[in-house]
Amino acid sequence: MSYQYIRISQPAEFVAHVELNRPDKLNAFIPQLWTELGQVFKQLSTNPDVRSIVLSGAGDRAFTAGLDVVSAGQWMGEIASLPDTARRAVSMRRHILEMQDCLTVIEKCEKPVICVMHGISFGMAVDIACCADVRVCTEDTRLAVKEVDIGLAADLGSLARLPKIVASSSWVREVSLTAREFLAPEAQAVGFVSRVLPNKAAAVAYALDTAKLIASKSPVAVQGTKELLNHSRDHSVPESLQYTAVWNAAAIQSDDVQAALLSGMKKTTPKFAKL
Amino acid sequence: MSYQYIRISQPAEFVAHVELNRPDKLNAFIPQLWTELGQVFKQLSTNPDVRSIVLSGAGDRAFTAGLDVVSAGQWMGEIASLPDTARRAVSMRRHILEMQDCLTVIEKCEKPVICVMHGISFGMAVDIACCADVRVCTEDTRLAVKEVDIGLAADLGSLARLPKIVASSSWVREVSLTAREFLAPEAQAVGFVSRVLPNKAAAVAYALDTAKLIASKSPVAVQGTKELLNHSRDHSVPESLQYTAVWNAAAIQSDDVQAALLSGMKKTTPKFAKL
Amino acid sequence: MSYQYIRISQPAEFVAHVELNRPDKLNAFIPQLWTELGQVFKQLSTNPDVRSIVLSGAGDRAFTAGLDVVSAGQWMGEIASLPDTARRAVSMRRHILEMQDCLTVIEKCEKPVICVMHGISFGMAVDIACCADVRVCTEDTRLAVKEVDIGLAADLGSLARLPKIVASSSWVREVSLTAREFLAPEAQAVGFVSRVLPNKAAAVAYALDTAKLIASKSPVAVQGTKELLNHSRDHSVPESLQYTAVWNAAAIQSDDVQAALLSGMKKTTPKFAKL
Amino acid sequence: MSYQYIRISQPAEFVAHVELNRPDKLNAFIPQLWTELGQVFKQLSTNPDVRSIVLSGAGDRAFTAGLDVVSAGQWMGEIASLPDTARRAVSMRRHILEMQDCLTVIEKCEKPVICVMHGISFGMAVDIACCADVRVCTEDTRLAVKEVDIGLAADLGSLARLPKIVASSSWVREVSLTAREFLAPEAQAVGFVSRVLPNKAAAVAYALDTAKLIASKSPVAVQGTKELLNHSRDHSVPESLQYTAVWNAAAIQSDDVQAALLSGMKKTTPKFAKL
Amino acid sequence: MSYQYIRISQPAEFVAHVELNRPDKLNAFIPQLWTELGQVFKQLSTNPDVRSIVLSGAGDRAFTAGLDVVSAGQWMGEIASLPDTARRAVSMRRHILEMQDCLTVIEKCEKPVICVMHGISFGMAVDIACCADVRVCTEDTRLAVKEVDIGLAADLGSLARLPKIVASSSWVREVSLTAREFLAPEAQAVGFVSRVLPNKAAAVAYALDTAKLIASKSPVAVQGTKELLNHSRDHSVPESLQYTAVWNAAAIQSDDVQAALLSGMKKTTPKFAKL
Amino acid sequence: MSYQYIRISQPAEFVAHVELNRPDKLNAFIPQLWTELGQVFKQLSTNPDVRSIVLSGAGDRAFTAGLDVVSAGQWMGEIASLPDTARRAVSMRRHILEMQDCLTVIEKCEKPVICVMHGISFGMAVDIACCADVRVCTEDTRLAVKEVDIGLAADLGSLARLPKIVASSSWVREVSLTAREFLAPEAQAVGFVSRVLPNKAAAVAYALDTAKLIASKSPVAVQGTKELLNHSRDHSVPESLQYTAVWNAAAIQSDDVQAALLSGMKKTTPKFAKL
Repeated sequence: MSYQYIRISQPAEFVAHVELNRPDKLNAFIPQLWTELGQVFKQLSTNPDVRSIVLSGAGDRAFTAGLDVVSAGQWMGEIASLPDTARRAVSMRRHILEMQDCLTVIEKCEKPVICVMHGISFGMAVDIACCADVRVCTEDTRLAVKEVDIGLAADLGSLARLPKIVASSSWVREVSLTAREFLAPEAQAVGFVSRVLPNKAAAVAYALDTAKLIASKSPVAVQGTKELLNHSRDHSVPESLQYTAVWNAAAIQSDDVQAALLSGMKKTTPKFAKL
Repeated sequence: MSYQYIRISQPAEFVAHVELNRPDKLNAFIPQLWTELGQVFKQLSTNPDVRSIVLSGAGDRAFTAGLDVVSAGQWMGEIASLPDTARRAVSMRRHILEMQDCLTVIEKCEKPVICVMHGISFGMAVDIACCADVRVCTEDTRLAVKEVDIGLAADLGSLARLPKIVASSSWVREVSLTAREFLAPEAQAVGFVSRVLPNKAAAVAYALDTAKLIASKSPVAVQGTKELLNHSRDHSVPESLQYTAVWNAAAIQSDDVQAALLSGMKKTTPKFAKL
Repeated sequence: MSYQYIRISQPAEFVAHVELNRPDKLNAFIPQLWTELGQVFKQLSTNPDVRSIVLSGAGDRAFTAGLDVVSAGQWMGEIASLPDTARRAVSMRRHILEMQDCLTVIEKCEKPVICVMHGISFGMAVDIACCADVRVCTEDTRLAVKEVDIGLAADLGSLARLPKIVASSSWVREVSLTAREFLAPEAQAVGFVSRVLPNKAAAVAYALDTAKLIASKSPVAVQGTKELLNHSRDHSVPESLQYTAVWNAAAIQSDDVQAALLSGMKKTTPKFAKL
Repeated sequence: MSYQYIRISQPAEFVAHVELNRPDKLNAFIPQLWTELGQVFKQLSTNPDVRSIVLSGAGDRAFTAGLDVVSAGQWMGEIASLPDTARRAVSMRRHILEMQDCLTVIEKCEKPVICVMHGISFGMAVDIACCADVRVCTEDTRLAVKEVDIGLAADLGSLARLPKIVASSSWVREVSLTAREFLAPEAQAVGFVSRVLPNKAAAVAYALDTAKLIASKSPVAVQGTKELLNHSRDHSVPESLQYTAVWNAAAIQSDDVQAALLSGMKKTTPKFAKL
Repeated sequence: MSYQYIRISQPAEFVAHVELNRPDKLNAFIPQLWTELGQVFKQLSTNPDVRSIVLSGAGDRAFTAGLDVVSAGQWMGEIASLPDTARRAVSMRRHILEMQDCLTVIEKCEKPVICVMHGISFGMAVDIACCADVRVCTEDTRLAVKEVDIGLAADLGSLARLPKIVASSSWVREVSLTAREFLAPEAQAVGFVSRVLPNKAAAVAYALDTAKLIASKSPVAVQGTKELLNHSRDHSVPESLQYTAVWNAAAIQSDDVQAALLSGMKKTTPKFAKL
Repeated sequence: MSYQYIRISQPAEFVAHVELNRPDKLNAFIPQLWTELGQVFKQLSTNPDVRSIVLSGAGDRAFTAGLDVVSAGQWMGEIASLPDTARRAVSMRRHILEMQDCLTVIEKCEKPVICVMHGISFGMAVDIACCADVRVCTEDTRLAVKEVDIGLAADLGSLARLPKIVASSSWVREVSLTAREFLAPEAQAVGFVSRVLPNKAAAVAYALDTAKLIASKSPVAVQGTKELLNHSRDHSVPESLQYTAVWNAAAIQSDDVQAALLSGMKKTTPKFAKL
């Protein structure tokens, strides 16, 4: 498949690099962009030649500036023409759920996703990064849960996911309620990103190295680990333990266990079948 | 309405300052104080002239020393006179639920609450602070989950909320099981407070500035953000996303979106209708 | 009862010290070891002479190196001889659930558990530490969520519990997906351990001091605190508040409240009945 | 306390009879009526002279015809005057939650409630009946989940509770989606009511007999039973079992157990302390 | 769009009739059929000219005989060629989730679905019927939760949904564990269907009448009712009440409320805008 | 293993018959009986020679009369001697949880259990029957949720499970709050039992026939069906669907699928490997 606003490359065996590719507009989101984003990650999820994914923005100025204002304005206009409040609400709800679903595809993607944030990273930048597994950023990254500044509560996932992936509720509520910017060191201090790199080249290189490391492991083990971590966020510990046992009852019957054990003893690099 | 043990002032447009006002007793809690606290926040919740709230203790020595020992003793005496264990248990359960409900009003208050802790901040101080949205404290703040030292498990919310708003379970359990004091820097390191200020005046000033900033934003956006953060703490991500879409389907139809967008372009200060 | 691979001592009144005791094999886990571990904590849970527990590994080199490879290999062989995939899956699921149950006994143990990690602490070391209440380690501790390196997703609790006891989801996923080692300072920075001590002797001494402090408090209060913290991790705040009120309705009717209050006033050390 | 639209009587020791008392308007609901209804059941919940409650409508023609149309119209008018959709939504949401809370008081009332439906029983009649413990009706009862006929989805509890208290989802959805009337025999066949009586006098007499029977039992046992049934509807079985054990740990220490056992052997009527 | 194995007609204004259309094979399911089924209901969900849907099978002999055995055999063969158990498991899991998703589209369809079962209705017939809102059948309907008879547990939804839509757990488990047939009267007695009609023509006619009745109501009210019933099945009552209030805060602002009220007074038929 | 108060026989291949065997005491429960009951079902759960189980009481007069009054009195006496209310509560809670766990073993037993009730079936009789998969009874069965009559709320599972396995909440609450007897026809009408037989011999024969039918099916399919039904009772539909897909991904790889399909075509009786 070919995409207009997404660039996909394969910088190493089993590693895909996905770039938001609308750099002249600071990678701001129009409907086609989020639709393509969902399609790309849905396809990568079951692509046997991909075992880990790096996600970044094209260009130097922004990971993404968030929602494209022109596009959003058009949509608001169409909604406004509907006959009554209830029908406008139905139309908006469908639209929000559709956008949420496109981003959730990243979270549900069976392969781990490492998100590199850089430059302007406002609004949807945070929504998207929250769907990734690992987050890193550059020293010049400027972040904000920006939605309050345009008169609405963030509705694409930041308020649902951010409190479950960082340390301090007091900090989450402060930045969400004030929409103020926060920079790379603060993002690292609260655990939102696990590494800050000097610039975009270094950040992408670090992310690719991590992706290659993950891609060198058993795909049965890696994809199982992601699935079980996704599950545990939304369930109690007893439920997660039970689900884990059922999951691994099949997964442990993989040839990968033998291959991994043998390689560990022989200090060789194991080869794993595709998945 | 007028209150005996709570002081309410309006230091800026749309900002309320609520003070626990029993300073000669270190703001220790008697039944009238927690009843009034619940009434105040219930009233502020729908008061259209208030958009954010600062909560602190009156006097310099304590945010609050926790439960008033004399008052607690009287209540224990009344309970002891009941005919059997089951009836004593019913009476206690009703009493605990009633106290919990008074504090939960702070959490359910539709307007964000910034809690300033200072000086002695033991027992109920932590229960109450956990119900606020943002927490700051002064350098002289002394904190403790004190209940184990009087022979009981904390039952007004600290054990339910604290693990969900700070970083480290190991730390939460250590301070809860030993009842040891911890000071401002430790509170900041684990993310319990998001800022430490030199003294009470500075802390209240900082809190008011944050409250004014929040009050300058769209109240539809701010109150929606608080509600959605409250919801996400207690629900899975898919449930929160669905609830968010339903919530915003009406909320986005606000005049505030236009006002905020226009002001953003014109660099003016938007005016929002009351809420 | 007497155990082959577990050593139990009572270094202070009301304090038990449990040691994984297979030091020549780096305390690696064979079926008898995890069975005994479950039995020990089940027995300590209701032993009235124990109020807090320190858990460490015997020997200087390792808390535990995780699953014993020889033993695991035997079990894999037995499974392989079963007639079909579905029957192998049933056998594995039963086996995983049984191992999980043995570790969960530590979490369910009514007395708080302080885990001292030291030296090699791989795989099951993390699974076990996640079940403890408080975690500390030595400067030489080497940790890893090691399972991906042997071709499987961790299934004894790390993926279920770790995200709920530390700060940063990005960090949890990175170490779980790469299986890379992390050392003591990193473990403290993310809140996995709440203290790093110079060596094993110092770490055990610190843990025993904390255990003695906890053992000096009302056992009704301490055990209630642990139970309520266990409950709150897996439930919403409203459910935890309700459960807490029901729990304390009986627990507050303890003689310990009087004893604690009196001792607090008289500055004496309270004596509490066994539990 | 005295009420304008509710009549309370005490037809037998420990039994209260609550009547909706606006018979000339078919007991249609205006704000004062639902406010009083909430107050009455909140007060009865902890009134030690009441152990069970019968709820019916005054007059012969209706249990209740539902929401008063004039009153609803006024409220719709007030809402319509608010500045934008988001602010109208906030006002409506607060209003719906307030009405829901008044009805939920019946469910949370610690004493069992037996609801007698008769004649017209539309809309709020079903919402209210769903909050009671036991439901009976007369042969002339006409029931409907009426809200779809006035252009809205039922929002006072029928859609939340009805599917959890009757047999057939297919039936629930059919009557909720069509708003069609259903009569007493159908209500009994699907388990919505557990008894149909010939007329109102017989139905109230039967309900009072059941209430007297319940009032003759240990109030510790009866109120515990209601609480545990309320809990189990909204929780998994393992959670309910745990909650039950904690609840009964105090409740079994009641003098009522001895009194009940002794009376059982001696064939006498036990006397229980108030609760 | 045009479909090979689904027939769609519009027998009345706002009413769609969907037929499984592979009658020469007893409407047995091949991949294209379930894919088309999902596409059809996804499209109808937001089609403004449809307000209610009848689902039946084409031909006289079967609603559906379930999974097509030839097609299932081919798929089993493909799976068997994969390199190891873990990879076979991944492939199967993806396949099952994809089939489940196609059926779940019926449940998530915003418009109510009335399912007419007739003749052979085995396996997937029950899975599908459980996703509908209202179920009716003919006197000659033969039903079975058939999967145990082919050596597997039902995995397309019957075991998840059936216990939540009928009366008796004992009955559900008996028919699920034995795979025995049950006929129309038994299906009605346990509440699985809410009506039994003499033959297919009568059953379709009855279903269309019900669909027309639903289509004559406010679509805002009807679609809200379905959504809230879907929500309440999977949530506690307090959560459903909160969600309901948020939902209706927008929905009540519909023009349909006025239209419905006016028509009610004037005894005319209201006209509602599309949705 | 041999048991004093339980009789186990194997009336047919793969079918076990478990009898409560204390007939001279109406099978009333003493600690040894419930301990043995738990042991028996735990052992049968993984016994490969058993595929389904019938549970009944020995003797003609009672399935079980419930808790043995003498034994209960002794225990109450021991509890009474403990130092304070909190310690008595701890002791009771442990005791209740232990009894609950013994009964829950029946529910968790991997093989389906068919419970035959007959004669006196009070208190624990209902608790136990609720743990079985299928329930039948004789015409002379006398049932009661008896606990309120001895001054306590039922705490061994009836209040947790009964509302989830029968039709009418109104009926459940009425019999639980009044402790009144109900007979076989009423038990069948509400779906508590799925069949009433003329006498004990006929009931046991019917249960054995059902057990034999189940035992003739694939044990992989049957045990998976029970597990998935257990899961779905306590989880939302989306969670159950996900769990089901993970479960079946391994289970479908069974040789039983081929064996069942072949036998279906050839009209022969399939042979399945043990499980």
